[in-house]
Amino acid sequence: MKREAVSAALPAPITEAPSKEELASRLAKVQDLMERQRLDLYVSFDPVNVYYLTHFANNVHERPFLLLIPRRGRPTMVAPLLETSHVRARALCDLDYATYYEFPAPQGENWYDVYRALIDPGARVGVEPAMPVGIYQRTPGETVVTDVIDEVRLVKSDYEIGRNVHACRVIELGHQKLLEICRPGVIEGMIYAAASQAMMARILGDIPHANIVVTRAVAAVWPPSLSHDPHLVPTFGTTMEKGGPHVSIVFAQVDGYGVEIERTFFLGSVPEPAKAPFEAMLEARARAYQLARPSAVMSEIDTAVRRVIKDRGYGDRILHRTGHGLGITGHEAPYLAEGYDRELEAGMLISIEPGIYIPGQGGFRHSDTVLVTDEGCVSLTRAPETLEEVTIPL
Amino acid sequence: MKREAVSAALPAPITEAPSKEELASRLAKVQDLMERQRLDLYVSFDPVNVYYLTHFANNVHERPFLLLIPRRGRPTMVAPLLETSHVRARALCDLDYATYYEFPAPQGENWYDVYRALIDPGARVGVEPAMPVGIYQRTPGETVVTDVIDEVRLVKSDYEIGRNVHACRVIELGHQKLLEICRPGVIEGMIYAAASQAMMARILGDIPHANIVVTRAVAAVWPPSLSHDPHLVPTFGTTMEKGGPHVSIVFAQVDGYGVEIERTFFLGSVPEPAKAPFEAMLEARARAYQLARPSAVMSEIDTAVRRVIKDRGYGDRILHRTGHGLGITGHEAPYLAEGYDRELEAGMLISIEPGIYIPGQGGFRHSDTVLVTDEGCVSLTRAPETLEEVTIPL
Repeated sequence: MKREAVSAALPAPITEAPSKEELASRLAKVQDLMERQRLDLYVSFDPVNVYYLTHFANNVHERPFLLLIPRRGRPTMVAPLLETSHVRARALCDLDYATYYEFPAPQGENWYDVYRALIDPGARVGVEPAMPVGIYQRTPGETVVTDVIDEVRLVKSDYEIGRNVHACRVIELGHQKLLEICRPGVIEGMIYAAASQAMMARILGDIPHANIVVTRAVAAVWPPSLSHDPHLVPTFGTTMEKGGPHVSIVFAQVDGYGVEIERTFFLGSVPEPAKAPFEAMLEARARAYQLARPSAVMSEIDTAVRRVIKDRGYGDRILHRTGHGLGITGHEAPYLAEGYDRELEAGMLISIEPGIYIPGQGGFRHSDTVLVTDEGCVSLTRAPETLEEVTIPL
Repeated sequence: MKREAVSAALPAPITEAPSKEELASRLAKVQDLMERQRLDLYVSFDPVNVYYLTHFANNVHERPFLLLIPRRGRPTMVAPLLETSHVRARALCDLDYATYYEFPAPQGENWYDVYRALIDPGARVGVEPAMPVGIYQRTPGETVVTDVIDEVRLVKSDYEIGRNVHACRVIELGHQKLLEICRPGVIEGMIYAAASQAMMARILGDIPHANIVVTRAVAAVWPPSLSHDPHLVPTFGTTMEKGGPHVSIVFAQVDGYGVEIERTFFLGSVPEPAKAPFEAMLEARARAYQLARPSAVMSEIDTAVRRVIKDRGYGDRILHRTGHGLGITGHEAPYLAEGYDRELEAGMLISIEPGIYIPGQGGFRHSDTVLVTDEGCVSLTRAPETLEEVTIPL
């Protein structure tokens, strides 16, 4: 990638709440897809999908929130009495409301009494695969398990991209702070606290009324004794080491928009055996950037990237796919993965993060939040990349 | 409550990881209940239940973890390749493993291929109401939607109680810090940062290798302009006011054990109209403490507590039940609620938090984490309670 060219092309960050038109446009896309799937109603339980359509964020607990979306017209939010004014205060779209009392509640006043009364038993009703079976079983009509909102979320609007660009500015700051204080002997808890505080301060400055429910900032480093095992989360007491490969993870959801950046780096010096896998990882990554463009089939990108790693002799050191989608969460569809035979489209937001993991030596992975554009793709996150850049003098 | 007598009775805090015997005893209770429900297999997807039985904590994302529990013998964990060593490192019970490659994956290598092969199509298979319908639909056998692990979790072991007692020490510290810095003009972000940092420092000191996935500490205050609306989460920029009622919420999950403490308090002075509802709240709360003991029916406690509030003239100012269970999460069964006709048992852990909410004036609610004992109940959390105690001089 040419840094300067890429930098010039970055969309501007956005920190404002979505307009009513933005939310209406999302709903229209959902209702279009419902039309094509011949659904009379779609029921959303997933708080991420509810947030996407309404700007209202809920914590899932035993009192369910259910968004009932008709094929035409405004949705109805089924919510507990305790939360109705919360929904009214935060939702920025037109909504009808149906309130139930409490969970549990006396007979006839439970959530499912209110919910079932709203659904025509003759209707064709779409529900999310993520819907809990306890709710699914109480859903009247001819139910169809289908991703409708998740499908619409795959391609981002200009507004969403602006929000994610802003979130990337926040995690870049967190990553800089992480690299600044990560030295041999420093414990994870210090890195986590310093980097997440830096990010939270930036968020508070930029968006004083950020919604706490959908705002968090996480930073951690896998030192070389752990980095071969990318999902073995370190503890607060995990201690940084000399050399490397250390692997950083910085993730934030900034007032509802989630992004990530990760880097392989070295403290003081690079062990000789680490050089070849590091370069192989860079090469695989470059291949992914080269291939990621509209109409490219995602499984084929994954296969091609794996081939680079295999050709370098690390075929048995691959633990995961090339990348995943981001947007509201830091982990969502689409997937750059074998078995996912869908084409990339402009406006999709993906991580590019092929990895090589060698027990006894460590892990090798950079990850960025990458926007697919008409011309190809552009990373929204910036951090040191080359072996020279990621070797921190002590 | 007599503070001294209560204090003497508190169980000792525990910070150690559970023994293999503790986890084996939990599994035995689950398998006993499976026997009574004539289940051949129980499938757990809920990460809270998986953690309860294994000590392994996962973040739910698109790669499912599924714990398959036979009626006798050791469970099998279905997990992605990327996580298998993570599970092995953290699980403290005997487990078999079944690994799938990735999500998504090429045909024949997906999670459901591995999952379905493990289940006898003739088996009677229990699943959680919280199981996503997308997994439910791929579950072979005669499926029965039933809470088995949730049921066993209702009554805590001595070990669990010790962990929750320790977690209460952490949130008491957070609550003290919150009261120390909450003054008119202070913003929410400052309170959140100071109190949560104090709690995290204490956790790190007590449990250096606390599991980050199940550790968090949250503190917030609803100032009087918001406190009438208990679930309208404030933003980081929300500003504290003079007078009150302010309502605090301090919650932590400390290395897997969740507890809460909340207080109504006043900065400088108590508005005259706030005195009567505050005292009504205290009276309702005292009634709940008086009634909470083994064999008491939970719905009847809620009814009696509501009656106190109604008799004081605030019957239309009730927004929620008297309390909910705690344990691993801060919000779980059982419920002190009308419609929940179950008896309390010694070893249950509940919040007691009747509330009165008056728009234009504010909210009135204290909450504590309370253990049901053979003799009655005992609050595991301590903080100022009376109007005099909760009025902070400026």
